[in-house]
Amino acid sequence: MKSPDTLRIALDAMGGDHAPRNEVEGARKALDRSGPSLGIILVGDEAAIRAELSRQGSSESPALSIVHASQVITMEDPPTASVKLKKDSSLAVGMRLHKEGRAEAFASAGNTGAVLSASTLILGRVRGVSRPTIGAFIPSEHGKCLVLDAGTNVDCRPRHLYEFAVMGSIYYRMICRKERPSVALLNVGEEKTKGTEAVLEAHRLLSGSALNFIGNVEGRDILRSTADVVVCDGFVGNIILKFAESVPGFLKTHLRRFAETSLMQKLQVGIAAPVLKKALSDMDPNEEGGVPVLGVNGVSIIGHGSSSPRGIMNMILRAAEVAASRINQQIEEELAGSAMQPTVDGGAALAETGRI
Amino acid sequence: MKSPDTLRIALDAMGGDHAPRNEVEGARKALDRSGPSLGIILVGDEAAIRAELSRQGSSESPALSIVHASQVITMEDPPTASVKLKKDSSLAVGMRLHKEGRAEAFASAGNTGAVLSASTLILGRVRGVSRPTIGAFIPSEHGKCLVLDAGTNVDCRPRHLYEFAVMGSIYYRMICRKERPSVALLNVGEEKTKGTEAVLEAHRLLSGSALNFIGNVEGRDILRSTADVVVCDGFVGNIILKFAESVPGFLKTHLRRFAETSLMQKLQVGIAAPVLKKALSDMDPNEEGGVPVLGVNGVSIIGHGSSSPRGIMNMILRAAEVAASRINQQIEEELAGSAMQPTVDGGAALAETGRI
Repeated sequence: MKSPDTLRIALDAMGGDHAPRNEVEGARKALDRSGPSLGIILVGDEAAIRAELSRQGSSESPALSIVHASQVITMEDPPTASVKLKKDSSLAVGMRLHKEGRAEAFASAGNTGAVLSASTLILGRVRGVSRPTIGAFIPSEHGKCLVLDAGTNVDCRPRHLYEFAVMGSIYYRMICRKERPSVALLNVGEEKTKGTEAVLEAHRLLSGSALNFIGNVEGRDILRSTADVVVCDGFVGNIILKFAESVPGFLKTHLRRFAETSLMQKLQVGIAAPVLKKALSDMDPNEEGGVPVLGVNGVSIIGHGSSSPRGIMNMILRAAEVAASRINQQIEEELAGSAMQPTVDGGAALAETGRI
Repeated sequence: MKSPDTLRIALDAMGGDHAPRNEVEGARKALDRSGPSLGIILVGDEAAIRAELSRQGSSESPALSIVHASQVITMEDPPTASVKLKKDSSLAVGMRLHKEGRAEAFASAGNTGAVLSASTLILGRVRGVSRPTIGAFIPSEHGKCLVLDAGTNVDCRPRHLYEFAVMGSIYYRMICRKERPSVALLNVGEEKTKGTEAVLEAHRLLSGSALNFIGNVEGRDILRSTADVVVCDGFVGNIILKFAESVPGFLKTHLRRFAETSLMQKLQVGIAAPVLKKALSDMDPNEEGGVPVLGVNGVSIIGHGSSSPRGIMNMILRAAEVAASRINQQIEEELAGSAMQPTVDGGAALAETGRI
C-alpha cells in the first residue's frame, strides 16, 4: 500500500441528514486539526457545496477541492438498486475516485446500506473474505467493545462469524492499540453447548483459531467489558446496537418525567442532568465518527446519518487513520494463514485436535 | 377454573440466591400485604425453613405451612436432567403440590431452566401450544414492554413466534389492563421485507391474525414504547434482556469513574446519583417479582435469582393474581379460534387474502 505525502479523502458531501452543511463544516474542522498532510475532496452538487463554503466564510482550495456529482442517494433509497441506478450520485462518484486512486479513502454519513453496497460492488472484496462487515463500538465499563456484524449480514453461516472475528480483532488492535484483543461469541450462556447451530459451529471454528478467543459471552457482558470484540450475526447485532443507542434518550425522558412530579425533584434533576450528560459523553456516536466497511479492497468509512460537524470531522480523521494502516493486507494474511481457510468443514475437525 | 376462598401458593423456599432467608421473609411480607385470602406453602428443607422462621421471630401457621423436600436444584444443575433426577427437590415437590390441586400456583426464584422444564414436564402444555414461553418486562418511556421469548426457545419457527404473540398479548392485557395491546415483531427494519426467513413468515402469520399487530419494530423501539408486546426468538430476547439488565450497573460504574476525576465532579455525582437511582427505580426487577411460564397447564411463576424479600413478595402476589385469572383458558380459546390453527402453512395463504 502506498504512503503518499498527502492522504486524500473523498467525502460524500451530500450524505448525512444535515448535508452539505455539516459535511463542509466537518471537513474544514478536520483540515484545521490535521494540517497539511490531509486533503479532502467534497463530492456532490457543486453549486450547493460552493454556496455552503461561502456561507461558512470559506472557499475551495488545493486542500479542500470539489468534484461534482449530479445525483444524491437518499436515506430512503433502496441500497443496492440505487447504487446501480444513480451512477452519478455523490456516493458512487466518490467511491470511484477512491477506486481509481485519486483518493486514499472514501467516507460518507449517508444511507448505510448503499455505502455498503457501493463498497462491495465498486471496490470488491479482500481475498478470503466471503462477507464484508461493519461493526460498531459500544462504550463499556473499562473501554469500548466492538460489536460486529452490526446489521449487514442478517443470516450468517459459521464461517462468516469466524471472518467477522478475524476482521474485528485486527480493527480493534489498530484502533485501540491492544496487541491481542479478546474475542467472544455473543450467546445465551457461557457454556460451549449453548446457542443456535450456527453459533455452536462458530465456537468450534474460533476455538481452533489463532485468535485470542475467550468463548461465549452473554448480553450483560457487553457493557461489562468482558471481551474487546463481540461477534454475532447482523440480526442480533443490529438489534442490540439500536437498543444501546436508545438508552440515553430513555434516561432523558425518564428524568424529565421524574422532574415533573414536584419542584424539589425538578431542582434535583436540574443538578443531576448535566452531570449525567457529561459523564455519558463518550456514548455520543459523534466521538467515534465512523466505522470502516471491513473486508473490501479499499477504505470506506460509514458515519452516523445524524453526524454533527464534529462527527464528520472524526469520520474523516478515522478514514485517514485507516488509510494509513495496513489493515486489508493484515486481513488477507490472517485469513490465508488461518487453519480454517481451505474449507469450512475442515475447521471443525481441526478444532477437535486443538484448543477447545 | 375453580375460585377457592383461599389461594394457596406453593413457594420453592430453596430457590433463590438467598434462600431460604429471602423466601421466608418475602412470604411473610406477602401475607401481611394480602390478608386472609392468601395461603403460602414453604417447600424445602423443613429444619432450615423452621430455623429461618424462628430467626425472623415467626413460626408455622395455617396461612404459612411447610412441606418438606429433601433435595435442592442449584443454579448450576442442568435444567431438564435435574428435574428428572431430583424427584424430591423443593422445585419438583412444589410443582407436584400444584399439579395435584393442593396449591393454586407455584412460584420459584430458582434455576430458570429447571422451573421451565418442571412446568412443562409436570403440568403439561395448554392445548394448541407447541412451545411454552417466558417473557420479561422492560420499563419503557410510557409504561412497560413485554419482550418474549426471553430465552426459553433459542431456535424458533414462525408458528412459535405467532404463539408467543398470542400468549404475550393475553398476559399483557391481564397485567396492564389494556384491552388490545399492540404487538410487534423485533426486526432490523420496519419494512415487511426485512429480516430472517422465520421472521418474514411470522410477519405473514401475524398480519392475518386477530391480534393488534403493528408490524416490525427495531431495537431502539423497545424503550420508546412503540409496542406493548415485542416478539422475538429466545436467542435475541435473552441477549437484549440481559443487556438491558446491565445498563444500571454500567451507569453506576461510569458515574463513579467520573467522580474520581476531581472533587467538584465527586460533589456533583454525590447529588446526581441518588436522583438517578430514584428516577430509575422502576428498572429494578424486584418490582415485577416474576413472570409466568406461559402455555403450561397451571400457574408457574419464575422470579429473579437475586430477588430481595420484596421481590419474593411481589412474585407471590403475581402468582396469586395469575391464579385468579382465566389466562390458560383464554390462551386455549384464542389459539383454537385463530385462523392459523389448522396448519402452519395455511396461515400464509390466508394472510395473502387478508390484512397485510
